[in-house]
Amino acid sequence: MEMNRDKTKLSIDLNLVREKSPLVHNITNFVVMNNTANALLAIGASPVMAHAIEEVEDMVAIASSLVINMGTLSEKWVESMVLAGKAALKKGIPVVFDPVGAGATPYRNRVAASIVSVCKPSIIRGNASEIMTLAKENASTKGVDSTVSSDSALDAAVRLAQETGAIVVISGKEDFITNGKIVRSVKNGSALMAKVTGMGCTSSAIVGAFAAVNADLLDAAVHAMAVMGVAGELAAQKAEGPGTMQLYFLDALYNLTPELLSQRAQIG
Amino acid sequence: MEMNRDKTKLSIDLNLVREKSPLVHNITNFVVMNNTANALLAIGASPVMAHAIEEVEDMVAIASSLVINMGTLSEKWVESMVLAGKAALKKGIPVVFDPVGAGATPYRNRVAASIVSVCKPSIIRGNASEIMTLAKENASTKGVDSTVSSDSALDAAVRLAQETGAIVVISGKEDFITNGKIVRSVKNGSALMAKVTGMGCTSSAIVGAFAAVNADLLDAAVHAMAVMGVAGELAAQKAEGPGTMQLYFLDALYNLTPELLSQRAQIG
Amino acid sequence: MEMNRDKTKLSIDLNLVREKSPLVHNITNFVVMNNTANALLAIGASPVMAHAIEEVEDMVAIASSLVINMGTLSEKWVESMVLAGKAALKKGIPVVFDPVGAGATPYRNRVAASIVSVCKPSIIRGNASEIMTLAKENASTKGVDSTVSSDSALDAAVRLAQETGAIVVISGKEDFITNGKIVRSVKNGSALMAKVTGMGCTSSAIVGAFAAVNADLLDAAVHAMAVMGVAGELAAQKAEGPGTMQLYFLDALYNLTPELLSQRAQIG
Repeated sequence: MEMNRDKTKLSIDLNLVREKSPLVHNITNFVVMNNTANALLAIGASPVMAHAIEEVEDMVAIASSLVINMGTLSEKWVESMVLAGKAALKKGIPVVFDPVGAGATPYRNRVAASIVSVCKPSIIRGNASEIMTLAKENASTKGVDSTVSSDSALDAAVRLAQETGAIVVISGKEDFITNGKIVRSVKNGSALMAKVTGMGCTSSAIVGAFAAVNADLLDAAVHAMAVMGVAGELAAQKAEGPGTMQLYFLDALYNLTPELLSQRAQIG
Repeated sequence: MEMNRDKTKLSIDLNLVREKSPLVHNITNFVVMNNTANALLAIGASPVMAHAIEEVEDMVAIASSLVINMGTLSEKWVESMVLAGKAALKKGIPVVFDPVGAGATPYRNRVAASIVSVCKPSIIRGNASEIMTLAKENASTKGVDSTVSSDSALDAAVRLAQETGAIVVISGKEDFITNGKIVRSVKNGSALMAKVTGMGCTSSAIVGAFAAVNADLLDAAVHAMAVMGVAGELAAQKAEGPGTMQLYFLDALYNLTPELLSQRAQIG
Repeated sequence: MEMNRDKTKLSIDLNLVREKSPLVHNITNFVVMNNTANALLAIGASPVMAHAIEEVEDMVAIASSLVINMGTLSEKWVESMVLAGKAALKKGIPVVFDPVGAGATPYRNRVAASIVSVCKPSIIRGNASEIMTLAKENASTKGVDSTVSSDSALDAAVRLAQETGAIVVISGKEDFITNGKIVRSVKNGSALMAKVTGMGCTSSAIVGAFAAVNADLLDAAVHAMAVMGVAGELAAQKAEGPGTMQLYFLDALYNLTPELLSQRAQIG
């Protein structure tokens, strides 16, 4: 019963993204901009990438959500992220924050903490290492890939959600999504996804698209992660490696039907 | 008869791009740099991406055409665009301008107007919304994707061409190319192209390649748009979504024969 | 006998990259960041891209090698490259330098010369034009693609290696790798590789991964170039153009076994 209601809501959100085609404003890193834009287009949203201090507030003004990703940082970009984040907060649209590589350098930690405190993101999505760093856990990070498991980061995620008021998403083999009270999970995906750069960043962008059409941000984040995981599974069935995976993933997002999504999604 | 002459000229230009392999200097956006470079290589041209104020004039000095694309703007990059544009104007090589997202923010509108007035681009290529914005029509833009049809922007394009002396290209389901007196059209392409980010930007780059080998810039622009459309159709026949589309498109550009191009091109 | 020992060392290095998954810090260009990160992931290394002056030294501190690629230069980025290069030199990890487009503009020549003199790269990898420019040969460059053959640049490479103490790699139809005394070669690869943007940049990154696991940098560079060439051959067998080539190449890197690598590698 509960399960069926969940699946219905999942289908509704996928359809809503395609009908409304929300404008998702991304201030993201150089590595993944192309993938992010393509993934948003493939799922039916409307991506825009803009980072100039002169225009980010105006872009937020026409956007339905904002995704801030700190993968390739620099001073000017951080200024724009903060400016855009504040504008989005004021306007009341969801801000998704992806603290890529938090834990790797003191600069990254400072920037991440500052964005969390000033922009008050509605949703924070990272891997286990990044979330533990943000929650000030004693996590060591090796570059931008996670070195701890999702499970061990779950306590940190719950505490981070309670402290910040944000929905916190840990992605990994099993994804966890929490508002600090409830913990939801998504058990989809493929190991091959970790071999394609920027899959985490793509998750954050897709979360941005779903957050733009569903005011229940916990549900929105769960649904987005289910879409990611199911598309990843479908792509992995055909892929012969991380190269073809990347493309079949976009095809899978594009061809994903509400039926197939509901059928395969393993939401807890 | 007229038709046959058109097709012959089309074939000649494709062969010329491959023989001369013109160096096309791109100052373009972060999202599409990779696709743009790959598309230029695939069609037979020689791409270079360089944006440093310290070197853009020297790069223009060895280039056969310059493509300015304002997809991901910032102050420093605009300075370089203007510097390169002026150098290209002085040298007498074609400047193609792609006003990505014109209409979305006041900053974009200011930059676009300034580039048009200072660099005097030989060719301006955009979607209907962008061209209407440049022509100071009352067009509302939602992000970087067009919200108006090509047809309704045609008057604006003709006026923009008359006012600026540029060839103006509106890409869409049907492409229109005008010098302010004559209006030409290309009826090729596939709906899937709009689901791949940066296809418009790629068009502008391909226009840059053809403008480098044919001094009749109206013809050059028509031929480039026909190449884009035909390659898009061929790719769409095999593609299972926007992911595979992106790659098959590059394969199609690479494998395009003058015969196949002539046969499929729907030039009006 | 000698041959067999070479092949054994080649297999060992491939296995080491996968076991150790070394963190390779890249300060590279906008065009290829995505490919570079994906290629490093596919071969089993751990990529990180970071260019902020505020963090490059800290990133070097946790990295096993540093790759500096000057494809899309600007003042701030050069500052970071130099800062990171000095930190890597001090720490004693290998620095791979890719002088993309050296010879195309005076600015590029100045920057390349300065990085070579200040960062003292352990390995320099470029095409024939770029290596000749660095060796102050009278080479004319057309954009970023090579205009001279590898053979004619070999003398320049040997002299550059002697003058700088770096291992110098010239990639081309046949790759040459020299420490100024010995010249090694790799005769693998496919013509289609030159039709995919950033394949040279990817080589440099893969060299960075192998240099991180083998202190004999001449061997490391030879092995990395053999991996590139063999993966390129395998990808070309399936590819129908430069689009699919790009993806099959990543698949081939990922699926490459030590046996297949040893069997196909043509190392001299």
